[in-house]
Amino acid sequence: MNVEYIKPFLTSTVAVFNTMLGCKLIAGKPFAKNHCQPEHHVSGIIGLSGRAKGAVVLSLDKNVALDATTILLKEQQHELNGDVADAVGELTNIIAGGAKAQLKHLAMSVSLPTVAIGKSHSIEFPKNVTPICIPFTCEWGSVAVEIGLIEQSAEVAQAVGAN
Amino acid sequence: MNVEYIKPFLTSTVAVFNTMLGCKLIAGKPFAKNHCQPEHHVSGIIGLSGRAKGAVVLSLDKNVALDATTILLKEQQHELNGDVADAVGELTNIIAGGAKAQLKHLAMSVSLPTVAIGKSHSIEFPKNVTPICIPFTCEWGSVAVEIGLIEQSAEVAQAVGAN
Repeated sequence: MNVEYIKPFLTSTVAVFNTMLGCKLIAGKPFAKNHCQPEHHVSGIIGLSGRAKGAVVLSLDKNVALDATTILLKEQQHELNGDVADAVGELTNIIAGGAKAQLKHLAMSVSLPTVAIGKSHSIEFPKNVTPICIPFTCEWGSVAVEIGLIEQSAEVAQAVGAN
Repeated sequence: MNVEYIKPFLTSTVAVFNTMLGCKLIAGKPFAKNHCQPEHHVSGIIGLSGRAKGAVVLSLDKNVALDATTILLKEQQHELNGDVADAVGELTNIIAGGAKAQLKHLAMSVSLPTVAIGKSHSIEFPKNVTPICIPFTCEWGSVAVEIGLIEQSAEVAQAVGAN
């Protein structure tokens, strides 16, 4: 994956956590993710398609998911329920939207987000894609954003209706 | 969600299992899915965007995921590893591709698939979408396909580069 695509997702994630949640994220060093590494308890997933196709996964510790939802809904959250899933899906959507706005030449549109909830689940990308994982820490716990993107030729993008 | 969108996903799933895996799926009655129902052990997820945006989730019992991968790779599978994730992602991709070909007027393109692996995980859609779940049974165990789609106006689709 083109490493220039990482920064828009990094800056978008930091900006969304800062402005929507008042939460300062500290980014670690991005790394290429191998398969089958279990991550966090809650993962927001959103697809991208256009001149590149891909997916973005926002994985959160249980505490981060609960604290973020508490702020967004202005109501203390105690369990990983539909409200938490909805909040994490929306954060994922806004992060992906912010990044795609910085990658206009890829003319990508986003899908609906889905959210996986379950202790020690892992989220895998296709084997022909090596996703880049950006780890973050914050006062609530740990956060990770994974991005896998494959550029498509203009002809392919047009043929699939993305142009 | 427009109920006419269900049939293309149902027929595509049955056709893909039949032709690629030699596995006869028996469809149950589709139903509107409530939030936070745990499903299976392996879920392939793919996003759709165009004149409708959405996501498709193919959830499989552990045995179904292992048996399907065994057939695709011609090698007995014993654990839920990267090979199984890759196979389930590819099945999800082909099912979504087959359905979108039957829904040409929505001019949808697919994202990259991702695969969630983890005992008793659940996959949630945004609260403003009520996904339809199509349950299936087969000789290997149970299978479910969930579809959530929101139609976008032509103006919105064009503005996001999907037209």
